[in-house]
Formats: sequence, structure tokens, C-alpha cells
Amino acid sequence: MIIDDLVKNPGAWLATDSEPGVVISHRIRLARNAKGVPFPGWTDNRARRALRERVFEILRDIPSLSSGLFLDMDSLDPLDREALRERRLISLELAEQDKGNGGGVVVSADEQIAIMINEEDHFRIQGIGTGMEPDSIWKRLRELDEEIEQRIDYAFNPALGYLTACPSNVGTGLRISMMMHLPGLRIMDEMGPVAKGLEKIGLTVRGLNGEGTEAAGNMYQISNQSTLGESEEAIMAHLSDIVRDMVNHEQNARARVLENRKVSLLDHVGRAFGILRNATLLSFQEAVELLSALRLGVEFGLVQRLSVGRINEAMLLTQPAHLQKIAGETKTPDERDEFRARMARELLGAAHLKRTRSRRTLGTTPTQTARKPS
Amino acid sequence: MIIDDLVKNPGAWLATDSEPGVVISHRIRLARNAKGVPFPGWTDNRARRALRERVFEILRDIPSLSSGLFLDMDSLDPLDREALRERRLISLELAEQDKGNGGGVVVSADEQIAIMINEEDHFRIQGIGTGMEPDSIWKRLRELDEEIEQRIDYAFNPALGYLTACPSNVGTGLRISMMMHLPGLRIMDEMGPVAKGLEKIGLTVRGLNGEGTEAAGNMYQISNQSTLGESEEAIMAHLSDIVRDMVNHEQNARARVLENRKVSLLDHVGRAFGILRNATLLSFQEAVELLSALRLGVEFGLVQRLSVGRINEAMLLTQPAHLQKIAGETKTPDERDEFRARMARELLGAAHLKRTRSRRTLGTTPTQTARKPS
Repeated sequence: MIIDDLVKNPGAWLATDSEPGVVISHRIRLARNAKGVPFPGWTDNRARRALRERVFEILRDIPSLSSGLFLDMDSLDPLDREALRERRLISLELAEQDKGNGGGVVVSADEQIAIMINEEDHFRIQGIGTGMEPDSIWKRLRELDEEIEQRIDYAFNPALGYLTACPSNVGTGLRISMMMHLPGLRIMDEMGPVAKGLEKIGLTVRGLNGEGTEAAGNMYQISNQSTLGESEEAIMAHLSDIVRDMVNHEQNARARVLENRKVSLLDHVGRAFGILRNATLLSFQEAVELLSALRLGVEFGLVQRLSVGRINEAMLLTQPAHLQKIAGETKTPDERDEFRARMARELLGAAHLKRTRSRRTLGTTPTQTARKPS
Repeated sequence: MIIDDLVKNPGAWLATDSEPGVVISHRIRLARNAKGVPFPGWTDNRARRALRERVFEILRDIPSLSSGLFLDMDSLDPLDREALRERRLISLELAEQDKGNGGGVVVSADEQIAIMINEEDHFRIQGIGTGMEPDSIWKRLRELDEEIEQRIDYAFNPALGYLTACPSNVGTGLRISMMMHLPGLRIMDEMGPVAKGLEKIGLTVRGLNGEGTEAAGNMYQISNQSTLGESEEAIMAHLSDIVRDMVNHEQNARARVLENRKVSLLDHVGRAFGILRNATLLSFQEAVELLSALRLGVEFGLVQRLSVGRINEAMLLTQPAHLQKIAGETKTPDERDEFRARMARELLGAAHLKRTRSRRTLGTTPTQTARKPS
């Protein structure tokens, strides 16, 4: 399969070994539609497929995309679709679209750009980058947006802005989200109030895999709700300010964890390390939780000889579809759990749990035996 | 305190490094009362204390006990009493007896004999040995019983046998119990029916710490219910036959675990190993469960460079009172959990988890990075 190479590598935005800190990655997407063509949900398969072919042709013409992957959903098997979703290159909606519905995705060679076709809108132009500085991704997206607009007329209303299938995206069509690792706030039980506060100022807080999912592995996505009435730059600057604030809150919470709950922190990290190194069966859900604890351990210097980048990579590659692509075969859930445990052990490799020197506490030494009967 | 030396050593019946197999230990006790003296529950503190002094005097005169410990409950603090109970030298009832009530215990230097005074009966003569062969302990108990009877008249009725405070002990006054480690039957969900079957043929099944406790760490005590109408030898032979049968059942169950559930077994043992080696906080209840899994691992050859004897020892010494005696100070529950985790790490020492050779499964190598943007 064409995506076999893809799934064996971490995405560009994950592979970094530089310290990504509290903000793991950011994602920007623009919702766009072709002028005079019904939205995907308002037309038939034939028209959708025709649009996809037209869009593929247009995008192949753009130099920064020409060496990328051009994938139509209709010819991908469920495992490949799921692997693309796990990489966050396509949405759950597109992954589960019926065959023949004309969905597609174009992925740039570096995986920083993914353009979904015939999802809710004709185009969902997405850019993903490491850390919290969106400028470089935003610059690429704007250039790409202009290059596409030179080749196809967008549905645009001078008063409203870009027109989209769902009113919530009308205007800029822009959504920016930041993926954050917030174990400090979670351990200190402060995530509830923080999330409520964010919602009050027009932001959305979600778990790792988007809407309706729990915050597995202490990973949260923070994104803007409103796309109307503000410029793209203002929306992004607003989110960046808030996220910068949250990074401070998180670092503050971590400092308090280290000060007041050091032993439970060591226990939390140590147990995760011990289980990952010795388990033979590991569900993905448990793996994410343990890897989150391990990540915290690396960030606190408690786990050594292991990079945050490798942990992020493991979070990506141990997902069910990726795992099966890597194994080169479909596997039962039990077989997947076994394979995943093996991947976790390999991940740890030479990793080492730092510990304060242990004093001898047992009263007996290994050679000491019981007193003889008198 | 006089028992400080005691608590830092494993009991003679635990310290063995020889393979104790499925049956960890056996215990025999004889209930006896002095003729013409009211049972402890039917008299006052003054009379009980007078009896204790008389009995201490008698027992000091017996050569095999003269170098032992003579402890009166009235002068022991709660921690020492609890430590004696944890060593199974005294019962919960005696450990919690009000001060001044005249309880006492005489422990032989090798700890194989413990005689409780003024518990439910005047004398509870107990012998504890490793494994399932009761002959040697039974021989000691009989000799001791005769030596005591030469010095004091027992309450005895030619038709009924030895008279005791509770009718359930009348007759031989004998109770024999075997402590068994039955993880195989538990993993295969067969312990329920087995326990029911045992009860039907007049045996009692209890957890680690006696009546009403759950089977922590897959440890079960099997004992006789009836003390009347059979000779001591017949009672013991009956229990030994049943226990021998159960050992076969357990070994059969373990073979099936190894055949049908090998991966979950490895997982169970591996996780226990990983947590014991890396946790910073460990409750006693969790420690017992993990040590039970570790014991199974040693018995299956999955955990190497660790003896079953050391694990038994850890089960004894990590109990709350023992732990505090070893630490030399009273500790809060949190502090105990921290100290216990340290003891567990020391226990593991050079222990090693055997594993089938791990193949490389991750598609990436540590040095491989993402593809560069084109």
C-alpha cells in the first residue's frame, strides 16, 4: 500500500528531539469551498468524485504539493483510513465515509500539510507544526491558500467572508488548536476550573482525539470557537496569549507537585516505567496513560536516556492501525496488546529511572538464616 | 524491647530457602485447661494473672522452653502485640486483650512453639513448621503436652476428652491447618468450587489472616473443624490426604495456566516485578498481591536469582508492625508505604525477569528522523 512508508515514521511534527515542552503541537485549518458547486453534503457521489478529480489536478500543479501523497478514500481499505486518522491527517468523519463518496486527502511530503477533500467542506486545508509558534505554518497555509485560489474560485461573500457548509465556520474559516500536555494541572485537580474558564472566553477544550473524547494521557486540545468578526491574526494571537498563560499555570502546578507530592510523583512515574518495561500485554489506552507519566518523568529529569520525541513517537505508532501496519498483518486485540507491550519495551531501551540512593532497610541480609533451635 | 530481635528475623518456618512448594507451612494447636480452675472468660483479672504466673513457672522448668521468650501481654505496648500477631505467634483476640487481663505467650527460641496463656483457654499450645509434613512438629507438641501434664492436671473427661471453653474444641482439642499458596486455582477460577467441596467434608477454608479475611496473595488456610470422635493421628492423616490432593489440583491448574494463558501469566508476573522494583509507595495489601505473583514467577522459573524463602520473608517483614519495628520508629501510613516500597526494591536485589528474546518491532531506529521537507 502507498501509505506503508508513511506509518512507519513519526510525523514531522512529532519526530523532533528538541524539547517541545508543555505545548506538543499546533494545528491550523482553513475551511474553503468552490464557488458555484454544492457543498459535499448537498450533492451526489458522482459530483463529489468529479470535484475530487478536479481538485487533485489543481493541487498536483502546486510545486509544494506535487511530491506529496494524493489519496482517494474510495480506494483505501479501512486499516489505511484508520492509520491516516491516527496520524490526524484526516478526520473521523472522512475515515468513516462510505465508499464512493468522493473523499480524498493530499498530504505534503513532510506531512506538515494535509488537505481533506469532500469532508464537510470541499477543502479543509490543514497545517501541523511542533510547539506553540504558529507563524511558519501560518505562512505556508496562506501561500497555499492563495495558490489554490489562483486556480479555483472560492465561495466568498464580501460581508460574511468565506462561506462554509456549517455556519460555525463562516468568516475566516479558520480554526487553530494547540495540543497541550497538562499532567501538573490534572494531578493538582485544577483542570476542571481551567477548562470552564477557557470556555467562558470562547475557547474549546477537548481530549486527545477531538470531540467527545476524554483527556487520555493528560493531553488536551485547546481551540477557538469563533471564526467570524475577527482577523485570522487576531484569532491566533488571542489563542497564543491564552496558551502562553496556560503554560505558566502548568509549570506552576508542576513545581507544586514536585514540592508537595514528590513521593507520589516518583511513585506515579516509577510504576509507569516498571509496567512499560515489564508488561507483556498493553492496551492502547493504558499505554497512553503510562507514556504520559513517562513524559512527565523525562521532563522532571526522573527518567533519563529517553527523549520526549521518542515518547511522542510511541504514542503515535502504538495506535491500533499503525501497530498493525508496522507488524505487516491484521491482528486480534490480544495480539495487538502483546505487540504493543513489546514496542514499549523497545522504546525504553537504555532508559533509566533516577532514584535517590537507597539505604538498606531490611533487617536481614540474604545470607542470614533463622536462629538455630537451642 | 525484648521482642526487637524477634521481629528482625524471619521465623524458622519461613526462613527456609528450600522449595516449600504449594504448602507453605503447617500449624498444629492443642487447647488445654487446668483442672479445677475457671476458664479465662469465666473469672477475673486477678485469677487470670495468678494462673499466668503459675504457668510461666511451670514452663520455665521445661528444658526446651527455658531459653525462650516469656511475654505477658499486660506489659507489651500495642506495636509489640501487633508484631507478635503478625508473626502468628498470638491470635488477634490475645493481641487486643485489655491490659491487666492476664494474657501471655511463651515462645521457644526457634519460634516453632508458641504457648498462649489465658486466651480462650488456659493453654493454647501451638507448633508451626515449614511445608506439609506435620510429624516432627506433632512429636514436639506431644512431648511438650506430656511435660506440662506432668506438672499440672488438665481438665479431662474420660468420655469426652479434653475440656475446653468452647464446645467446638472439646475432645482432642486439636486443630491442624495448612497454609497453601493457590494462584493456579484462583487464576483458573476454581477456588470457589474447591472451597465448597472442602467445607462439605468437614474442613474450613480461610484467607491469610484467619477467620473472615479475604485470601490476600492467593494464600489459603485449610483446617479441620471437628475435634471430637477421632484420634489426633486420624484427624491429621485426613487433612494431609486432602491437602496432598489439593497440591495435585493446584499443580494441574498451574500447568493449564502455563499452557493456555502463558502471555497473561507473563504479564501478571512481569507487572508485579516492574511495580515492586519501581514503586515508591506500596500498601501492605498491594505488596502481598505482588509478592504472590512474584512467588508464582519464581516457581515457574520466570523470575530468577530470587528464592521463595526471601519472598515469604518479605511478606512477613513488610507488615505494618514489623516494618515499624525494623525502622525503629512509629510511622504514618504514608511513611510506611514509602518504607515498604524501599524494602521491596531491596528484596528484588539482583532478581531478574526471564523473557523470551525480544524481536525489534518498531519501524524506526533511534537515529532515524522524519523525512525532510521536499
